[in-house]
Amino acid sequence: MQLARVLGQVVATMKDANLTGLKLLVLQPLSASGEPAGRTLVALDSVGAGVGETVFFVRGREAAFPFYPAEPPTDATIVGIVDHWSVT
Amino acid sequence: MQLARVLGQVVATMKDANLTGLKLLVLQPLSASGEPAGRTLVALDSVGAGVGETVFFVRGREAAFPFYPAEPPTDATIVGIVDHWSVT
Amino acid sequence: MQLARVLGQVVATMKDANLTGLKLLVLQPLSASGEPAGRTLVALDSVGAGVGETVFFVRGREAAFPFYPAEPPTDATIVGIVDHWSVT
Amino acid sequence: MQLARVLGQVVATMKDANLTGLKLLVLQPLSASGEPAGRTLVALDSVGAGVGETVFFVRGREAAFPFYPAEPPTDATIVGIVDHWSVT
Amino acid sequence: MQLARVLGQVVATMKDANLTGLKLLVLQPLSASGEPAGRTLVALDSVGAGVGETVFFVRGREAAFPFYPAEPPTDATIVGIVDHWSVT
Repeated sequence: MQLARVLGQVVATMKDANLTGLKLLVLQPLSASGEPAGRTLVALDSVGAGVGETVFFVRGREAAFPFYPAEPPTDATIVGIVDHWSVT
Repeated sequence: MQLARVLGQVVATMKDANLTGLKLLVLQPLSASGEPAGRTLVALDSVGAGVGETVFFVRGREAAFPFYPAEPPTDATIVGIVDHWSVT
Repeated sequence: MQLARVLGQVVATMKDANLTGLKLLVLQPLSASGEPAGRTLVALDSVGAGVGETVFFVRGREAAFPFYPAEPPTDATIVGIVDHWSVT
Repeated sequence: MQLARVLGQVVATMKDANLTGLKLLVLQPLSASGEPAGRTLVALDSVGAGVGETVFFVRGREAAFPFYPAEPPTDATIVGIVDHWSVT
Repeated sequence: MQLARVLGQVVATMKDANLTGLKLLVLQPLSASGEPAGRTLVALDSVGAGVGETVFFVRGREAAFPFYPAEPPTDATIVGIVDHWSVT
């Protein structure tokens, strides 16, 4: 998983039917020190995250798991909202 | 998923039988600010996207989901046409 | 798999139900010479690793295997604690 | 998928039994403008491609699909020979 | 798949039970010209490779295939020892 900040939202009328009703959020991945790290991406949300929040997201095949038994065609999904994190 | 612009099309007579009749589009991934970000790729299309449009696409195992029960050997598929997006 | 150092921990109250009770650790991948190499990430732990330890982790679909039959939505899981390694 | 040029071939006597009889080709991925882009890799071939040809290949789980019901341990397979492509 | 040189071995007493008895090798990926290319990683071995040898390895879900019906949590496995390769 990776830490990320929610930057915004994508609006798409024409999309795969299995994405209907799901929020499409724009994420900026963050390093352990909280700095932007790597390219922005579009992710689904399974935990009620909103713009400006710090979250962590999962990539790949597991990104569809939170929507089971639905199978939206997603490769990135927010699976938690971060309260805080510590690094040594 | 990633935002991308559709740059063009690939023509291939000799290809896997499960790709027959499917459009092969050349995509340029975009950052959240709309700039080219990362390498171009070839993707299938499941939503009727055309050259010049802004889309988002999914990578990996999920890229075959929109064609179910067919299983084309694809690792990237356009799953939505972008109306607009916002970033804060 | 990749070598990594455990840097810290993420605290998240609001998260996918299948992550409940699982530690979320912040990892710094390491090169074969023990130097930081690549971006930090968040991983689950299946072997009792703690902050400061050197571990190796697995990415992708296999990251959920150690929790079978549970299927937490994870794309990175620590699967071993490193005693030492040799390179020629 | 990605565009690539076939650079050469790998010879390996000792290999996984499910790779027996399959060609192992060395590929150089190409950008949309036809320039080398990214690292060379080794791929299987499902369409009769030869050295010097321009092809496109699929990565990941789908790379084994063209060989079904066989399941060679491959993460990259050529699935088409490119006649030409256009970019705007 | 990618070409790689076997650099060394990882010793880990505490690890996932499905890794017991399997060699954990440190690999340096190689370009088509035989130069180091990209980050070192830890891989399992399914063909009896040793330190100093040139091999090719598979990433992702397919990395567990050579151990079937066992399912070790691996994302990288050596599947062949390279005799030689040619590039044009």
